[in-house]
Amino acid sequence: MITKEQQKTAQKRAADMIRASGIQITDEEAHGIEVVDFGLSSLEKEGVQVLTLVQTDRVSIKVLVLFPNQTEPEHWHPPVGEDPGKEETIRVISGTVYFYIPGKSTFSKGFMVDGKDNYYTMRNEVVMKPCDQITLQPGEKHWFQARDDGAVMYSFSTIARDALDQFSDPNIERITKIFDE
Amino acid sequence: MITKEQQKTAQKRAADMIRASGIQITDEEAHGIEVVDFGLSSLEKEGVQVLTLVQTDRVSIKVLVLFPNQTEPEHWHPPVGEDPGKEETIRVISGTVYFYIPGKSTFSKGFMVDGKDNYYTMRNEVVMKPCDQITLQPGEKHWFQARDDGAVMYSFSTIARDALDQFSDPNIERITKIFDE
Repeated sequence: MITKEQQKTAQKRAADMIRASGIQITDEEAHGIEVVDFGLSSLEKEGVQVLTLVQTDRVSIKVLVLFPNQTEPEHWHPPVGEDPGKEETIRVISGTVYFYIPGKSTFSKGFMVDGKDNYYTMRNEVVMKPCDQITLQPGEKHWFQARDDGAVMYSFSTIARDALDQFSDPNIERITKIFDE
Repeated sequence: MITKEQQKTAQKRAADMIRASGIQITDEEAHGIEVVDFGLSSLEKEGVQVLTLVQTDRVSIKVLVLFPNQTEPEHWHPPVGEDPGKEETIRVISGTVYFYIPGKSTFSKGFMVDGKDNYYTMRNEVVMKPCDQITLQPGEKHWFQARDDGAVMYSFSTIARDALDQFSDPNIERITKIFDE
């Protein structure tokens, strides 16, 4: 969980990074940025900030922000009814993103989240710079990380059903609880 | 049809407008910009420039460029097999876009392409500025236009099958012929 104050601070920080990357957003969009701590209450270490631009029954367009040295935990998009699961293309806009997908271990430039080796099992490393893209098939496990410069990305995908995403870490809850202090 | 020289000039002009709008693209992407004259051989009047960033079996992401006072002709996205047709969200990045969709006539700020009244039948006007979005359902007729400042937009959609798009103007051919002079 995070406090309302943490949420507000993270929203502002993410909006500033989005705008600095060249992506224009409205103030209303900035105030709607979702701050996700995955129920781990350690936002700066494991978390992501998400601005949803488009959400229909068929397409989802998001801007994702990673603060410096923040990691989005390993997860995958399972089938839902007749949908084979979310197909997602990530395009980096600013910063460097360390992306981990299935394949042989080439882990070298990213860092492991302290004591979480068991929950970050994909070790095939793809280092992505601005304009680099990667497409994830439904069910493909992935996690990603920013280093000191943080990162801003687009996520272009089929319908997103975030609440149904599955995570390697059993302690994760996808929906972040916000509380008043 | 257009000449190779026209194509090259239009690609460069479109790439410059895309970059000036804040969207970063690679040189390879810039060289892949599709210059579309709709077979009308009057690119500056009726045409569009298209950079495809993502094209999978489920999602299509494009950057669309309209030069100053260029109009993309009225068209719609028909059903294809079990697909109900392309659903498309346009988000304006730079410039003002005059968008025409079904509904009562409110045509006032755009201009009619000379002698083409019969081929531009949608007259419900939506004036769109940067960060404005519109979602078009499958089969919904639409056309759009830039004035003196030109325009850059994202098109976020389900799978694009451009060659199957349908146009009000029977003279249109979606695939542009490029020839060496």
